[in-house]
Amino acid sequence: MSELRLNPATGEWVIIAADRGGRPHDFAHPGRSRRKLPPLVEGCPFCPGNEGMTPNALLELPSESSGRWQVRAFPNKYPALGPGSASGATSEGPLFAAVTGEGAHEVLVETPLHNRFPADRDDGEMALLVQAYQQRYLALQSHRSTKYVLIFKNHGEGAGTSIEHPHSQIIAAPVVPEKEQRRCQIACEHYDRTGRCLYCDIVNEELRLASRVVYHDNQFVVFHPFAAGRPAETWIVPRDHAPSFGHVDEQGLRAFASVLLQTLRQLRTAFGDPDFNYAIHTAPKDEEDRPYYHWHLQLIPRMTKAAGLELGSGMYVNVAAPEDTAEAMRQARP
Amino acid sequence: MSELRLNPATGEWVIIAADRGGRPHDFAHPGRSRRKLPPLVEGCPFCPGNEGMTPNALLELPSESSGRWQVRAFPNKYPALGPGSASGATSEGPLFAAVTGEGAHEVLVETPLHNRFPADRDDGEMALLVQAYQQRYLALQSHRSTKYVLIFKNHGEGAGTSIEHPHSQIIAAPVVPEKEQRRCQIACEHYDRTGRCLYCDIVNEELRLASRVVYHDNQFVVFHPFAAGRPAETWIVPRDHAPSFGHVDEQGLRAFASVLLQTLRQLRTAFGDPDFNYAIHTAPKDEEDRPYYHWHLQLIPRMTKAAGLELGSGMYVNVAAPEDTAEAMRQARP
Repeated sequence: MSELRLNPATGEWVIIAADRGGRPHDFAHPGRSRRKLPPLVEGCPFCPGNEGMTPNALLELPSESSGRWQVRAFPNKYPALGPGSASGATSEGPLFAAVTGEGAHEVLVETPLHNRFPADRDDGEMALLVQAYQQRYLALQSHRSTKYVLIFKNHGEGAGTSIEHPHSQIIAAPVVPEKEQRRCQIACEHYDRTGRCLYCDIVNEELRLASRVVYHDNQFVVFHPFAAGRPAETWIVPRDHAPSFGHVDEQGLRAFASVLLQTLRQLRTAFGDPDFNYAIHTAPKDEEDRPYYHWHLQLIPRMTKAAGLELGSGMYVNVAAPEDTAEAMRQARP
Repeated sequence: MSELRLNPATGEWVIIAADRGGRPHDFAHPGRSRRKLPPLVEGCPFCPGNEGMTPNALLELPSESSGRWQVRAFPNKYPALGPGSASGATSEGPLFAAVTGEGAHEVLVETPLHNRFPADRDDGEMALLVQAYQQRYLALQSHRSTKYVLIFKNHGEGAGTSIEHPHSQIIAAPVVPEKEQRRCQIACEHYDRTGRCLYCDIVNEELRLASRVVYHDNQFVVFHPFAAGRPAETWIVPRDHAPSFGHVDEQGLRAFASVLLQTLRQLRTAFGDPDFNYAIHTAPKDEEDRPYYHWHLQLIPRMTKAAGLELGSGMYVNVAAPEDTAEAMRQARP
């Protein structure tokens, strides 16, 4: 029998229908073609030597060993949002509100090597990437028009990637998306009612119940949330309450990089290198200094497809119980 | 330059970035393998002769010519929600609310022919399908535990279909999904503020502005909404205000079937038979008799993939302006 679970952070119901899907390992997608890629691809705009194919770099972090760039950020050549001159409202009539797409959309090439995917890396490489995330995040937060910044990654074609060379993206929008507003509102209501941070409470409950925890140490907790919408959805949450990713110190960034790397390795081992997305949820710019939000990373493996039920109702069917996928990830820890 | 548009029905911002995607026809996915399927497939549980492979029928509507079933509804063998005996709350601690998955999940086989996809059919076949939708909808609405019913269809693998024989699904849930609650809330607020139905206002604005209208007659308006989240997202909305699909009369159902058929043909002609989902939005059970909701069908072609930005923020990037895709659909009208 399935179970309907309410996501305490979003107010969304999820159907956990584990008997529809078989055991967690049945979702495994082993042996993807990315395993066989060469380290350098002629004509790849993100490979070293082809920097002229992209806009000028906004940030280059050098490799300690070679002195050449290890992480490189630049404006997306086909931006969803871009620097605006004609900024302002472009609404049609009383019902249809619009603004010009002022903002920014950047690419972060994660490594000079075309075939060095996240789980292949070492702590140092991952730390440099996370450091670049924060630097570009802070730069984009400082833009006058920015209301909301999202750092995200698409890994594999099934996760929406069009260029296979490993890269992340960061977008700065002049509006706060509805879903993020709702997250803030729910966290704010919880804070007003209890005097506590919702995410701190969730973390403490997950630790107490233990069955969905993948890993925890003094600084981070990794777990499959109670109302996970998709098989092996994973949250990485800092234990210390901190609304914004922009405020994490250097030591915290290094610890985050390490736990992210380890989590992606466990995902690959447990489920056979699935495509995935991740996104860093952090307080919108105008809420950064308020106490109720708590930044975290949400990792969404793409092992099943959203269909008409999900698109129509917004209610997800998860064919794997998070308790079972968390157990599979725990067992995949070296 | 892109544009951010606010969906007046959901409160969600969408990025319309038409210069990222090229012309509407560039999304076309011509010549899918479904064109070459045989009319009858041995071992297909939905083909005639294999009825024993499915649970017993809940409804069979006969073909006028053959007298055999033309549309056949039965419980999904692997239901996301099912009849409950152990119904009740199964929450974990104070934060994690859950209820057992009581409800229903049915399959409607749309035609005895394995290869007769919607756009291949005639008005009579489509009318019978829509009639079956309503009959099962009414049956499920009458269940004591039902709070919300969704009729939906997945067409093609990219839209989440696992069985290729044409079929729809209907689900009855004991909760109202957050997204649907939000739609109702927004419609209710509009009604309280203006005394008018939000959807009637949207339809009238779309007709006045005309650029996104695909088709209209005395009974239905077909358009690509102002803040369409995906290329060629299409709404079919009845002109007469009616909260519930359950209340549509026989003549209205026939007209709906005909306009749905025509729309799916235009989609196939304009965009080369893309995978798609559709869902019928109708007032939740407890709101059926209130004046502010307005049932409609939402058709979502699956020509682009949701990635980290969409999953993380809930904000969609649409690489085709709805004005352009509506024009392509208009031109595809025979």
